[in-house]
Amino acid sequence: MVSYEPLRGMKDYFGEDAEKIRYIEDQFSKIVKKSGYIEAITPILEEFELFALKGGEELRNTMYTFVDKGGREVALRPEFTPSIVRLFLNSMQHLPKPIRLYYIGTVYRYDEPQFGRYREFRQAGIEMLGESSINADLEVLSILWEFFKKINLENITIKINNIAIYRELFSMLKMSEDQEDHLLHLIDKGNKDSVIEYLSKISEYKILNIIREMLYNSISKESDFIELIKDLNNERSKVLENQISRLFKIYEILAKLNVPIKIDLSLVRGLAYYTGVIFEVAHPSVSFSIAGGGRYDNLVQLYGGPSTPSIGFAIGVERVLSVLQNLKIKDNFRKIAIIPLNENVIDYALKVLFILHENDIPAILNTKNISLSKIIPNLLDMNINIAIIIGENEKMENKVSIKDLTTRQQSSISLNELLSYIRQII
Amino acid sequence: MVSYEPLRGMKDYFGEDAEKIRYIEDQFSKIVKKSGYIEAITPILEEFELFALKGGEELRNTMYTFVDKGGREVALRPEFTPSIVRLFLNSMQHLPKPIRLYYIGTVYRYDEPQFGRYREFRQAGIEMLGESSINADLEVLSILWEFFKKINLENITIKINNIAIYRELFSMLKMSEDQEDHLLHLIDKGNKDSVIEYLSKISEYKILNIIREMLYNSISKESDFIELIKDLNNERSKVLENQISRLFKIYEILAKLNVPIKIDLSLVRGLAYYTGVIFEVAHPSVSFSIAGGGRYDNLVQLYGGPSTPSIGFAIGVERVLSVLQNLKIKDNFRKIAIIPLNENVIDYALKVLFILHENDIPAILNTKNISLSKIIPNLLDMNINIAIIIGENEKMENKVSIKDLTTRQQSSISLNELLSYIRQII
Repeated sequence: MVSYEPLRGMKDYFGEDAEKIRYIEDQFSKIVKKSGYIEAITPILEEFELFALKGGEELRNTMYTFVDKGGREVALRPEFTPSIVRLFLNSMQHLPKPIRLYYIGTVYRYDEPQFGRYREFRQAGIEMLGESSINADLEVLSILWEFFKKINLENITIKINNIAIYRELFSMLKMSEDQEDHLLHLIDKGNKDSVIEYLSKISEYKILNIIREMLYNSISKESDFIELIKDLNNERSKVLENQISRLFKIYEILAKLNVPIKIDLSLVRGLAYYTGVIFEVAHPSVSFSIAGGGRYDNLVQLYGGPSTPSIGFAIGVERVLSVLQNLKIKDNFRKIAIIPLNENVIDYALKVLFILHENDIPAILNTKNISLSKIIPNLLDMNINIAIIIGENEKMENKVSIKDLTTRQQSSISLNELLSYIRQII
Repeated sequence: MVSYEPLRGMKDYFGEDAEKIRYIEDQFSKIVKKSGYIEAITPILEEFELFALKGGEELRNTMYTFVDKGGREVALRPEFTPSIVRLFLNSMQHLPKPIRLYYIGTVYRYDEPQFGRYREFRQAGIEMLGESSINADLEVLSILWEFFKKINLENITIKINNIAIYRELFSMLKMSEDQEDHLLHLIDKGNKDSVIEYLSKISEYKILNIIREMLYNSISKESDFIELIKDLNNERSKVLENQISRLFKIYEILAKLNVPIKIDLSLVRGLAYYTGVIFEVAHPSVSFSIAGGGRYDNLVQLYGGPSTPSIGFAIGVERVLSVLQNLKIKDNFRKIAIIPLNENVIDYALKVLFILHENDIPAILNTKNISLSKIIPNLLDMNINIAIIIGENEKMENKVSIKDLTTRQQSSISLNELLSYIRQII
């Protein structure tokens, strides 16, 4: 027997829940369109390798993957960024940079389901491709904030870090990229001690100390940080200084504009392709982040494309929904049903329905073949409180009878006056 | 190396193509919401058996199906109706009937790709559950027509038939349901001769003759049809008569309302669960149907639920797009870029950006670190023709410089006057 439940870890939405999801998605697309982003729609199914290449350990292990009838190893997308990069490489390389794209849709991860973590969930996000400037970082972070302000979630915190600082420090230790990625994965999972233990074996005291201070968020000022790296005596410490300064600059500009932003030097994100500024959105009522993103300057090249520094973020739609408990979807209008009293007047009833719909007035047709007195309680059950009753007389005289189901008042209205009358009472 | 193309049979959309898809979906959801339908969002991945049970031969053979990490045989949905029925059984049985639901999303069929046939494509549709009356059929067909009228595709034809007529005739021949389904599948595939040959072996002349007349659409009037079945002498011929009369009644009522409807007695659809009125939308410029649907009175019971006569349809979004060639997405507004001249004024530039966005005025931030004279051609490339230039002076004096990139005129405007000035020039 077929189960009536959706698959484990997946959810159905209907009515108000579905409306709330669409509300979040609509507010998101309004904001990003205003900022010049255009929509990209890519397939849910892609080549497995597209996501496996640089997605990181966690993603690789939780992907829905299978071999299709044509022998291809395919995956349900676990996130959008690789698909957007593929689209860019396939169709948009010739366009003026930066390219601003947005997306909305479902992603898939075969993970142990729990509150805030589903196997199918929705993401809405943006990617700006082909721009490395700090202005690009600021634009993307500003849009993220504008979105949360728009949906009245002003009590969020945007935690920000610059993964390039870790990467520069690691590369001073002559670490391979795979080693870097693995250590970043450990930090992301909260295993700070393993990281310190690992580093203490290969690192001189100075670098180990800087990383420890970062992991435990003990550096609060840019000048302290610069002081700390000053005597590293490495030819690359200028790069490091610039990355530190970039992080603090972004923080200061946005903080001045009252964006609730906070530097968190221990922040690392699951995806392995980040190279610069990264960020996550926290909300006091939940332990998981409700949005996140960052700069990925090498991903396009990794797929064989030209140097294309890029940055983006994704919002977890259901996660945002979970903290938007008080959201009320407005539905103030009174609802209308058209009731044809017998089969001979259905054509006239449909004509009335068409007139209302063409004038943007919602109305349903009563489809039940039962007496008027039985229909009315049924309509009230469905929150319908205006009935347009149509019998032989109404059809003959080009009229309708309009009954207010709450007050029980009934009026006879000519078809010419229908719209103005209805607009008064709904 | 990862391919830059989407998987075979799948497509990327961006920019205007994506906007057109969203336009079709938005028009659809506006129409169905006005008719009292509420949205249902179900997972793309479901138990394989849900779709296999009564989807029909073609569907079963073209499904994307695999075993997930938990050992479940799952499928990417090839259509929505079974998921909607599952949702109804799981969560909505207690609600007053009929239940009106709509959906929009992607479906998957591993089929040989060709024009109008993709492996991932989009459907938008409705289902009315729990109502058997002719009014339900009329409402659903009316909504279908309202949608096409709304998007200015008035040169469609709605072809309509009643599959119950075939089913009744077949069951007079004591055929099993599987045999019925197989014969209907053959008719759907255009193999009329095989059907006649098959029937000529088991059928008396009368029924064979009626079916032949139907297959070749040689019956044009209700009275002729009734005459033809009159001497069948079967206790079920009353049912047959009612089904014939229902088909012609629907046709006449809608034709009177100028709906472009046409009875096609040879019409059969691929899905095996239809039991009554079925229909397809044809457009003169393409050979495939662009929408279709029908009545399925037994599907809910087949899944173990209570008797719930239902009817619905789905629109093929890309197929509708393919016949909507002249659709122009309006974009008349002049576009604005904000250009901070150096890093010290980015905070002020972002402030201006927030003000514009909060007042629903689209504007992007220029992110390139190049001189103004180089930025302008780049902006014109992106169809941006208003620049808001921000330097140290502008920041100090709470002003902006607004340059019309087409006329090259430049004005200095105080922040207080920004909105009214911008609204005049865009």
